[in-house]
Amino acid sequence: MTTEEMPRQPWVLTVADLDAIALGAGVLGSGGGGPAELGKLLVLEALRHTDPITIVPMESQEDTPLVVAVAQVGTPMVFSERLGRGTEPSRAVQALEAHLGARAGAIMCDELGGMNSMMPLLAAAHLRLPILDADAMGRAFPDLYMDTLSMYAEGPVPCAFCDEEGNTAILPGVRDPRPTERLGRAITIAMGGMSYLARPAPFGQGRRQAIIPGSYSRAWAIGQAVRRGADRQDLPALDLRTLGGRVLFHGLVTVVNRRSARGPLHGAVTIEGYGNHFTGALRLEFQNEYLTAHWDSALVAVTPDVISLIDDETGEPVGADQARMGHHVVVLGFQADPRMTTPEALQVVGPAAFGYPLAYRALELGEERR
Amino acid sequence: MTTEEMPRQPWVLTVADLDAIALGAGVLGSGGGGPAELGKLLVLEALRHTDPITIVPMESQEDTPLVVAVAQVGTPMVFSERLGRGTEPSRAVQALEAHLGARAGAIMCDELGGMNSMMPLLAAAHLRLPILDADAMGRAFPDLYMDTLSMYAEGPVPCAFCDEEGNTAILPGVRDPRPTERLGRAITIAMGGMSYLARPAPFGQGRRQAIIPGSYSRAWAIGQAVRRGADRQDLPALDLRTLGGRVLFHGLVTVVNRRSARGPLHGAVTIEGYGNHFTGALRLEFQNEYLTAHWDSALVAVTPDVISLIDDETGEPVGADQARMGHHVVVLGFQADPRMTTPEALQVVGPAAFGYPLAYRALELGEERR
Repeated sequence: MTTEEMPRQPWVLTVADLDAIALGAGVLGSGGGGPAELGKLLVLEALRHTDPITIVPMESQEDTPLVVAVAQVGTPMVFSERLGRGTEPSRAVQALEAHLGARAGAIMCDELGGMNSMMPLLAAAHLRLPILDADAMGRAFPDLYMDTLSMYAEGPVPCAFCDEEGNTAILPGVRDPRPTERLGRAITIAMGGMSYLARPAPFGQGRRQAIIPGSYSRAWAIGQAVRRGADRQDLPALDLRTLGGRVLFHGLVTVVNRRSARGPLHGAVTIEGYGNHFTGALRLEFQNEYLTAHWDSALVAVTPDVISLIDDETGEPVGADQARMGHHVVVLGFQADPRMTTPEALQVVGPAAFGYPLAYRALELGEERR
Repeated sequence: MTTEEMPRQPWVLTVADLDAIALGAGVLGSGGGGPAELGKLLVLEALRHTDPITIVPMESQEDTPLVVAVAQVGTPMVFSERLGRGTEPSRAVQALEAHLGARAGAIMCDELGGMNSMMPLLAAAHLRLPILDADAMGRAFPDLYMDTLSMYAEGPVPCAFCDEEGNTAILPGVRDPRPTERLGRAITIAMGGMSYLARPAPFGQGRRQAIIPGSYSRAWAIGQAVRRGADRQDLPALDLRTLGGRVLFHGLVTVVNRRSARGPLHGAVTIEGYGNHFTGALRLEFQNEYLTAHWDSALVAVTPDVISLIDDETGEPVGADQARMGHHVVVLGFQADPRMTTPEALQVVGPAAFGYPLAYRALELGEERR
């Protein structure tokens, strides 16, 4: 994969592009984020009735006052059972527009990991608006406030929620993101465990600081690379350096511990290495997403960097809820965007935020030898 | 009590007026609605820093586009422990104003029963706005949608919620009142079990249908009558006919059954009668509020008419959570406003709505003989 192969901008999405983005977003889900494939089905259905979707570079929308970030909130399991109508993300945008008394000029993605890579595409399709090649996490994370829009907000950020029945709720702007999270969760639960969220991106100076550029391109390129690796059956040899990533490990899942009493799915996955290069064992700890990777006792990757398991034959992402003993897997690591690794960001998404007594150490892209 | 003694309009509230309204609102609480006395303390505190509060007749505000109804939502028990700052009701109004892009011209009471008689006075004081001599229940009821604003709404009614920390949430207008109730409860729980709610009253034709006039005057007059009865120690002989009420019973509480596993406080109170007139027993069923009164086997009062217990010496209301064996009480009944007894209203607040297999029968004001 070279940068020359990256899609040019503005970029009208083809079905093949959607496939690549869904796969790449699954990888960036870092073991969580829900099934992008299901969301993709809704986008394909929407495209039968709407104009094509155009992804545009962030710079092209610098003068657009209202750019709206879209996400689904709640339990992916609920989504698997209730796909919804596909119009919910656009309804959430409209509820925000009505509250603000302003029209959205473009859509953006809040969480380009898993299913939430697709929800903003649905809104863009139904509202016939361009969507930024950008997001606010660069991956999946479990909570609303774990994104750059919250971390770098200069004031309260209004949130609009919508459910399948068209009910809407607005949090007009809570100063502290944690009450927003608490209220947003309560609203989501009252909406049946799943809601659709629209929030404005900052305008002006703050926008560049608060938005991660190139996220759809990156997901597309990761998806393409993984697909080709699977086609050639050489996934363990993938070269992902130009995409800020590398293969961390290749082996067999030998132990899975999983518990989910109240709150997120917790646990660990142990992978015994294959071949001469991947000796010993890699141990991943997860809380919805894979958050730490230790090769024997050495930390090789840690949140907010992406840690992803893929099936070593098909290249399909293996979620923390799916990993099972006997699974042959390749483990990938990707560097987080620099906006996610500042001191203020690490307070929210660094290892300590998840209770690990570890300092963040950026993923090394050169091959590690022991 | 004669109608000549009723306060003239517009009416600048004195401390004595507040005392009478708090007592009358306690009676109209029908055994629920929480302690008006606690709310009164907050109003007295607010009045040290604000202009006096002026109650105005509904007719005087017919040309005021935005009249905002105010209520506290949640558990009175939480309020007893956390009085709040007193500014929450006005904050809820301001959140609604910001959402609607319009300024309130007057405040109104949503639930003139118990504590919620005082919350709109707080908003009126802090915002220096007049408050209508009116409400939307004429008593206390447990749920948001059990009011005339919901029953006679011609379209979606936006709701603004506020908590003690200044966090706000808006339900911009849910078509069906039940999701509003569900979402409102969820928001309230996430706000710590208590929130402050502001909703617009309808404008134009719908206003007269949807608002119960004279509610503060009625509470004041009931408070005055009960206070005088207590001073003269002849509460069982109160003549309340000009106020749409009468003494239903006088006796000793002999049995109290109370249960509150999930949901409202349920139970029954049995009162053995005193003297020659009140023979046999009166049995009250309650669900937060007293909802049915049977004299032996005859139904003498039923929701939405008001059924109220007062201490036969002090005249203080005895809530369904307070009644205890050995309590000497007088039971009062008051007719509901006609807006609360239409077929559509009875679907929401009639006996069947609370699970009683009874038809609504209006309280008779002439003394009943058996």
